Amino acid sequence: MYNIGIDIGATNTKFVLLSKLKVVKKEKISTPKNKEKLIKLLEKNIKNLISGIPQSKIKGIGIGIPGPLDKKRDFILNPPNLKHLSNCPLSKIIQKDLNIRTVMENDVNCFVLAETILGSAKGAEIVAGITLGTGVGGGVIWKGKSIKGAFGSAGEFGFMTIKFDEKHLGFLEEYCSEKFFNRKGIYSKDLEEKAKKGNKQALKIFQEYGKYLGIGISNIINVLDPEAIVIGGGISKANKFFMKSAKKEIQKRVLSPLSKKFVKIKISKLKDFSGAIGATLLIENG
Amino acid sequence: MYNIGIDIGATNTKFVLLSKLKVVKKEKISTPKNKEKLIKLLEKNIKNLISGIPQSKIKGIGIGIPGPLDKKRDFILNPPNLKHLSNCPLSKIIQKDLNIRTVMENDVNCFVLAETILGSAKGAEIVAGITLGTGVGGGVIWKGKSIKGAFGSAGEFGFMTIKFDEKHLGFLEEYCSEKFFNRKGIYSKDLEEKAKKGNKQALKIFQEYGKYLGIGISNIINVLDPEAIVIGGGISKANKFFMKSAKKEIQKRVLSPLSKKFVKIKISKLKDFSGAIGATLLIENG
Repeated sequence: MYNIGIDIGATNTKFVLLSKLKVVKKEKISTPKNKEKLIKLLEKNIKNLISGIPQSKIKGIGIGIPGPLDKKRDFILNPPNLKHLSNCPLSKIIQKDLNIRTVMENDVNCFVLAETILGSAKGAEIVAGITLGTGVGGGVIWKGKSIKGAFGSAGEFGFMTIKFDEKHLGFLEEYCSEKFFNRKGIYSKDLEEKAKKGNKQALKIFQEYGKYLGIGISNIINVLDPEAIVIGGGISKANKFFMKSAKKEIQKRVLSPLSKKFVKIKISKLKDFSGAIGATLLIENG
Repeated sequence: MYNIGIDIGATNTKFVLLSKLKVVKKEKISTPKNKEKLIKLLEKNIKNLISGIPQSKIKGIGIGIPGPLDKKRDFILNPPNLKHLSNCPLSKIIQKDLNIRTVMENDVNCFVLAETILGSAKGAEIVAGITLGTGVGGGVIWKGKSIKGAFGSAGEFGFMTIKFDEKHLGFLEEYCSEKFFNRKGIYSKDLEEKAKKGNKQALKIFQEYGKYLGIGISNIINVLDPEAIVIGGGISKANKFFMKSAKKEIQKRVLSPLSKKFVKIKISKLKDFSGAIGATLLIENG
């Protein structure tokens, strides 16, 4: 049996074909900027991906979306970076056109699901995932399933207030996304290059970043008490420059001595295709 | 059938006898300061409470403890205000002595369970409870059961960082427990009296308090997305002086427009005996 996973990003859209939890094919395309074109291209790529496989062997299609969905996961609500998909019942359209069962989920939830079932949090019962990039995303898996919350939006870790003042709301996203580096006049990737060369100023900025991340992770632990936390997103690639200061902060701020000692803090293992892989897993675990 | 609930506090211990979800008897005593005396007194009071009822009609005993328990809820770990109970397998001792099934849970979890089944969050599927007193406690109920987390300590809302600086860790507990009022040189109860008389300074302090509480509640909503939040503890009695500013903050800080609109924010309905009532409910829902 085969599952198809699609991770629609603002810039790129990734496809994987999975069989027995192994990636059989993968593909990456630029995301069209208009709804009709996007749907056409998705359907064309799905057909390519499964060409030669009998329809009876195709179990379903999972789609990861960078933004909020309604609680039933039938509609895309208002994705900040894909505004032309607002209110689009994308999974229903594709299911009808291709006659293959199709489900949708928030892309960060797909990422956490993939890491829980196949990645660095494999086997953990309660997993919180956090993605560090343009924004800070989050998701929670409990017993192999994504926790949606009462209104469909649990796990929005980027919007926890960690430090505010009269002028700033002080959300974690202000301190742990690319915005943090932008305020210092640099991109995280460029800073990473400098840090690799031992630049002291760069190392110091990453240390400061790690402190904020550690505070955010401590809040997650004190509230959810997960067995594992998985960190993904572009900035996580520089983890060796900030995880030490993050872990120091966690030791200072987590209440439970057991959580402090035993919680597993891991970096994403599945990397770039984790969202698409997670989307395939929705078909059974969504 | 009858259930017995006990809420052991640092100062007082409360007992209730429940039948068909109604309180049949209740009792309040001072908490002895030594383990042997406490166990003796608990057992004596339980026997009094059930005198005249045949043993076959007694379903069980639930005990609420002001502090952390091990994940299996067999041992009291290290309650800050009842140090003589550290590592005590209290429920097992009572179960053996009285031959009645006995279970334990953190007292705030008991409070949230009671409010979910019989109080102001009745019928809600995901409920977060927060208690405002000497400290800030928290607990989460999902589908009628207390969420324990991977290491037994989910829902420690008082330890979320909301505003820190070089000198302060900046936990919610520093801003939303009695400590907040103490720093201003007053007790919350005295301030409440002043506020009732329209004292402007008092009203302003409660407004500030409400802002911090609103920030804490927003963090809970962004992470857990509960259907309802129940606020209890001594300070909650002054809610009419701080809930307006708390709600204003929530509107500013919650990401999901659905949660913002539909989440129910309620004050505890069961008041002083909510912990003991919740402890009786553990026997079926723990």
